[in-house]
Amino acid sequence: MGRPFTYSRTIHFPDTDAAGVVFFARYLSIVHEAYEESLAAAGLPLATFFADHGVVVPIAKSEASYLRPLLTGDRIEVELTPTRLSEHSFALEATLWKQISGTRKRAAVTRTEHVCIHSTTRERLALPDALATWVDAS
Amino acid sequence: MGRPFTYSRTIHFPDTDAAGVVFFARYLSIVHEAYEESLAAAGLPLATFFADHGVVVPIAKSEASYLRPLLTGDRIEVELTPTRLSEHSFALEATLWKQISGTRKRAAVTRTEHVCIHSTTRERLALPDALATWVDAS
Amino acid sequence: MGRPFTYSRTIHFPDTDAAGVVFFARYLSIVHEAYEESLAAAGLPLATFFADHGVVVPIAKSEASYLRPLLTGDRIEVELTPTRLSEHSFALEATLWKQISGTRKRAAVTRTEHVCIHSTTRERLALPDALATWVDAS
Amino acid sequence: MGRPFTYSRTIHFPDTDAAGVVFFARYLSIVHEAYEESLAAAGLPLATFFADHGVVVPIAKSEASYLRPLLTGDRIEVELTPTRLSEHSFALEATLWKQISGTRKRAAVTRTEHVCIHSTTRERLALPDALATWVDAS
Repeated sequence: MGRPFTYSRTIHFPDTDAAGVVFFARYLSIVHEAYEESLAAAGLPLATFFADHGVVVPIAKSEASYLRPLLTGDRIEVELTPTRLSEHSFALEATLWKQISGTRKRAAVTRTEHVCIHSTTRERLALPDALATWVDAS
Repeated sequence: MGRPFTYSRTIHFPDTDAAGVVFFARYLSIVHEAYEESLAAAGLPLATFFADHGVVVPIAKSEASYLRPLLTGDRIEVELTPTRLSEHSFALEATLWKQISGTRKRAAVTRTEHVCIHSTTRERLALPDALATWVDAS
Repeated sequence: MGRPFTYSRTIHFPDTDAAGVVFFARYLSIVHEAYEESLAAAGLPLATFFADHGVVVPIAKSEASYLRPLLTGDRIEVELTPTRLSEHSFALEATLWKQISGTRKRAAVTRTEHVCIHSTTRERLALPDALATWVDAS
Repeated sequence: MGRPFTYSRTIHFPDTDAAGVVFFARYLSIVHEAYEESLAAAGLPLATFFADHGVVVPIAKSEASYLRPLLTGDRIEVELTPTRLSEHSFALEATLWKQISGTRKRAAVTRTEHVCIHSTTRERLALPDALATWVDAS
């Protein structure tokens, strides 16, 4: 049980919408980037799951609270905490921190549920060992 | 109290990701398109809110359950039901239906919370009359 | 040789960026939507190409001139004209028209080159018959 | 006259489409990220231009050649070279390099033209000094 994985990123212009801030759905894309980076840091690039024929891990649910607007040029950090839900699923809790002059404040908190299934039959499968290890070690 | 507003759309290639299906965050963008179309159909184009100096209606929370994958070429319908939450907020419940050979099945259900605030002070404001009417009439 | 295919669309909030207008790269995504709709109207849904194992038609080049800003709520029309370049490639010229109070003005013109290749060997292939027919008939 | 600015980035899942690779228009978004990072590295965050009332620098033209597919997990580098075109415009040439086992190969080359205008009158304006310095120093 270690510290949560942290992913740092700058907000770019294509992340924003005409209200001048990051569009709400985009927060979830950014969390997914952090999830990919966390897997890659553990030697588990997402691409390999697709190479493992028949195993996909789609997101079944998402929840998000949007607490602060994010603007072009903002520096953010995403902290991730995965939690095992069952043999074939896990939850991922994320906090997006916005850096504000030396301190940081929460810009959003999200929770996603990931379920391992067979890509064609859509039947539930046990998490691949490497993914299970990543979930349980975090 | 009428029937829910329905927005029809085809899934396009840029909506999808490398898993061959619509990325989960994108479902929420599609719901937002439907929301804009519903406002426009009521004579309330979203652009006018921004012209009303100082009033923005950001999304404070979102929840979604992703029930079926959506592929390029799929025809979908989005049904929207707004519900008043308070003087300055409302919820929007959406169902995304996927058309499958003459019938339709739920591809996702979402719920978003929209809060009216002042664009600079970020203080809560009462919903503009036209928006309140749209919420309460639906 | 018929009239160019026309695709109509409203600009939505997620299409825009913090400058309040459609991000330049997004014009090309919208052209791709029009291209998909044109193929679908000809009975050639893009999804079928991927089902034809081994044949993909990636875009090798793009050019665009951005002439007018597009805002949330704008109604646009995209006109497409494909032109055969070789046995295994074609160009697609597109004009994006912005509807302005009863008339329309050009918002952008684009040109993309599409090359048919084998998905794994990346070798050039002749255009599939149905696609060649669509190109040559336009 | 220095070396070109280099921006490094990993390709993430939301960057890709159902063909399993980065959608062609997305290459241009990634170039824009690099442009923003280059400006920020020179002490010129893009957000400041919008704060300078009345000055915007939209992209008037783009050209791109897509040479190699980019997949989720790929590491890329973007090299930028700005060139002055006139008192109120400049071109930005970009090369996207894909890192392949110790070496790197070109994934795309792009060229964009950026024109300084007044945000409401849309009349051409001289480049702001700081931006002109950035262009001419590169």
